Amino acid sequence: MRSVFATFRRPGASAVVPFLSDPAGDDPQVLLIRQYRYAAERYLYEVPAGRLDPGEAPDACARRELREETGCEAERVEQLFTMYTTPGFTDERIHVFMAVGLTRGENAREADEFIEVETMPLSRALSLVERGEIQDAKTALSLMYVAGFRAGR
Amino acid sequence: MRSVFATFRRPGASAVVPFLSDPAGDDPQVLLIRQYRYAAERYLYEVPAGRLDPGEAPDACARRELREETGCEAERVEQLFTMYTTPGFTDERIHVFMAVGLTRGENAREADEFIEVETMPLSRALSLVERGEIQDAKTALSLMYVAGFRAGR
Repeated sequence: MRSVFATFRRPGASAVVPFLSDPAGDDPQVLLIRQYRYAAERYLYEVPAGRLDPGEAPDACARRELREETGCEAERVEQLFTMYTTPGFTDERIHVFMAVGLTRGENAREADEFIEVETMPLSRALSLVERGEIQDAKTALSLMYVAGFRAGR
Repeated sequence: MRSVFATFRRPGASAVVPFLSDPAGDDPQVLLIRQYRYAAERYLYEVPAGRLDPGEAPDACARRELREETGCEAERVEQLFTMYTTPGFTDERIHVFMAVGLTRGENAREADEFIEVETMPLSRALSLVERGEIQDAKTALSLMYVAGFRAGR
């Protein structure tokens, strides 16, 4: 069995919920991305996220993915929790952050051109989770977490 | 790239949040399992869940996993939503249900002896999510979903 598990040892990843307004304010604005996922054969709403580079710290990864996928820099990122994606199958963990104080970086034009960026109030994002229109587990959980435990409503 | 994705085509799975008291009541009781996960190298809290058998419907799978992992039969299961576990990597989806009207089945003794079953109020389960002590993504999301959208608080 060891060799099977070894096949799926993975480096871990970071994900980040980007707030465009004060998270403690009334129904804050969040930023989501939309991209085509071949495995799912559809466009999915997601939070910016990606694999850690070798030796990269999870918070640095969260900032990098935010920059690469949205062109934004964050004044501050704060770790929220860590989740196992599929613990029966792999050791992959995702470190989930929230980002505040966003500014369009100088390299905003480097943002991935195959990714659409969409801004919406947190209440709308939660409504998409409730209706099953946000189907990516890390994204749905991250949004529910910030709404339940960190953001004003 | 096609062949890479094809490697990770998976049959899908069901998960179920078992309610031991009326979900609409004040702080309902839920049932969680604890099992050792080799990939994670630790014990994790989880909701009962598992892979679909060939030809098996998601609701039948939810009932079967509930029976096998806890020894309980459900009067009714209701589908809540469907999530992609890691859409950048695999097409695996988990169909999430809630189960109500639980009774100890006749075959309760067949329940997996390597799985511990634990009952707790939903408020405590949410507190474990908040503190990062429920780290399995499907479990944390399922609990947040029922708390946010289905259960009384």
